[in-house]
Amino acid sequence: MSTLHDVGEFGLIARIAKMAASAPHVIEGIGDDCAVLRFNTHTLLVSCDLSIEGVHFLPGTPPEAIGWKSAASSLSDIAAMGGAPSFVLVSLACPPDCEVAYIERVYDGLLDALAQSGAVLVGGDTSRSPAGLMLDVTSIGEVVGGRCLTRKGARPGDRLVTTGHLGLSAAGLHALENGHEAPALVHAHYEPTPRVSEGQWLASRTEVHAMIDISDGLAQDAGHLADAGRLGVDIARASVPLDPGLAAYSEVHACDPYAFMLGGGEDYELAFAVDEAACDDVLAAFRREFHIPVSVVGVFNDTWHGVRVDGEPLSSGGFDHFKQDETTTGNP
Amino acid sequence: MSTLHDVGEFGLIARIAKMAASAPHVIEGIGDDCAVLRFNTHTLLVSCDLSIEGVHFLPGTPPEAIGWKSAASSLSDIAAMGGAPSFVLVSLACPPDCEVAYIERVYDGLLDALAQSGAVLVGGDTSRSPAGLMLDVTSIGEVVGGRCLTRKGARPGDRLVTTGHLGLSAAGLHALENGHEAPALVHAHYEPTPRVSEGQWLASRTEVHAMIDISDGLAQDAGHLADAGRLGVDIARASVPLDPGLAAYSEVHACDPYAFMLGGGEDYELAFAVDEAACDDVLAAFRREFHIPVSVVGVFNDTWHGVRVDGEPLSSGGFDHFKQDETTTGNP
Repeated sequence: MSTLHDVGEFGLIARIAKMAASAPHVIEGIGDDCAVLRFNTHTLLVSCDLSIEGVHFLPGTPPEAIGWKSAASSLSDIAAMGGAPSFVLVSLACPPDCEVAYIERVYDGLLDALAQSGAVLVGGDTSRSPAGLMLDVTSIGEVVGGRCLTRKGARPGDRLVTTGHLGLSAAGLHALENGHEAPALVHAHYEPTPRVSEGQWLASRTEVHAMIDISDGLAQDAGHLADAGRLGVDIARASVPLDPGLAAYSEVHACDPYAFMLGGGEDYELAFAVDEAACDDVLAAFRREFHIPVSVVGVFNDTWHGVRVDGEPLSSGGFDHFKQDETTTGNP
Repeated sequence: MSTLHDVGEFGLIARIAKMAASAPHVIEGIGDDCAVLRFNTHTLLVSCDLSIEGVHFLPGTPPEAIGWKSAASSLSDIAAMGGAPSFVLVSLACPPDCEVAYIERVYDGLLDALAQSGAVLVGGDTSRSPAGLMLDVTSIGEVVGGRCLTRKGARPGDRLVTTGHLGLSAAGLHALENGHEAPALVHAHYEPTPRVSEGQWLASRTEVHAMIDISDGLAQDAGHLADAGRLGVDIARASVPLDPGLAAYSEVHACDPYAFMLGGGEDYELAFAVDEAACDDVLAAFRREFHIPVSVVGVFNDTWHGVRVDGEPLSSGGFDHFKQDETTTGNP
């Protein structure tokens, strides 16, 4: 009998997807960042995201950060489709001896993240928990301008592009776990910014063919884009921009910054596939609109499948909930 | 510093509701069975429901029953507004050594409940859990015929009416906890039927003023209807129909069946307020349409507040997640 540890998170999701019935008003079902649903004449985007103490966040995490991050990870799924988040529901389970003031601080952080993205809290559920704090955040959004981006759609020759700097959240977690002083990285870990406006702008550009948010690590999430398009993607390591703070931290603590940048998730930056010929124009226009970096970091091709870094195959570079070591924390 | 145990589930919900911003497209926010949301020209109903091992279901519960019941409790919230459930998302957390076949059986039960209500599974999240199985089921539905029923709207003189028989689920749990043989009651506990068609029919009758599903027990849920309308409600104990199987079980095991019927939740029957003058007509029409009992069990008034049973005040008669004893299980 196989266990979840044997088949892994993606094996389980594939099995559930096979069991679920299809329906004409389900445009995208299980398997993408959001469900894409036809609701009368409009298109609804819906996503759920679990945040569990000891799995997604370390015990001792400030309650505002727990709330912010659990909301950000869910809102980022709407951003990854180019949607506008509207409504959020939160299911919260916690021990009955938990202080009310502590829970209010969780909601403070959560509501701050919602306000920044223009979403409102409209409901949820509450329960006693047998072990620590647990949140499930459901975000409901809407497609803007009639177009949303899924993981599927990359074409051979398309450029793989990322927003922002990667690896900061993973390095922040590393600092927390090792007792290192690194406030900017810890902040990146605690309060990642979902790229909601950027996602909507990108979905409005037809030269952008597919998109995902980086929650499991660039290597793995680029692999999801490649797999969905039945393509391969080659990441050029040197083209992934290195944040100066991450560079400094890595040097002081003798870490490989590229391990954080390629393997670390939860920065909630966007990764997308852009038409080769239009790439320069799209990036120049993006830079005029937004004040965050945007970088070509790879190329899609149809000669092989999977992910390579500088031409070398990569077997596994991201997070799997059921295959990961029991003591790992802080991942999606 | 007060804890969740001190303020209780409803105290926590009231605090969260106060913190959440209001918005013009939120028709009903935190506090009712569903959020009621204006989505362009249509009205969306959304609800989340947690099901946690050791809190909502006993360890050893058949996996199909875990799936069915967690879906039923969420779908019932849509039924309670008179809506039609369309889409369901499931967040699942479980230990990595869990067998895949076991999880597939959970989804079998869940998908059966969805199929019965006309809803489809469209997404969710999966994660490792630190302690046992945990599901959060999000149901998205639509208002049918332009009208949905909230908890608010009961008027003085309105009759309190319930569908079906109550207390069967609570007696089934009692049988399981005490090792008694009672297959029909255990079935009622494991596979309650959300009253989706009945709810839609009731919402189409303007003589029905307010509605709720009975998840926390008749006394408590009737109290929610009374509170929302700033009224009192007097339940006539003898008018609550006693299921023959429950009567027999209670006699054999020396239990008070009315404790199950008034205090036990999770039957997911409907309780609603009907105009006094129209009550006979509405009930007669309901009986022609559906083959389940429907019974006048109380009267709303504006002379006092809260819940009384045969004129006697009732201080507390339902389930509170944070006030309940740690060992209690099987409740919402």
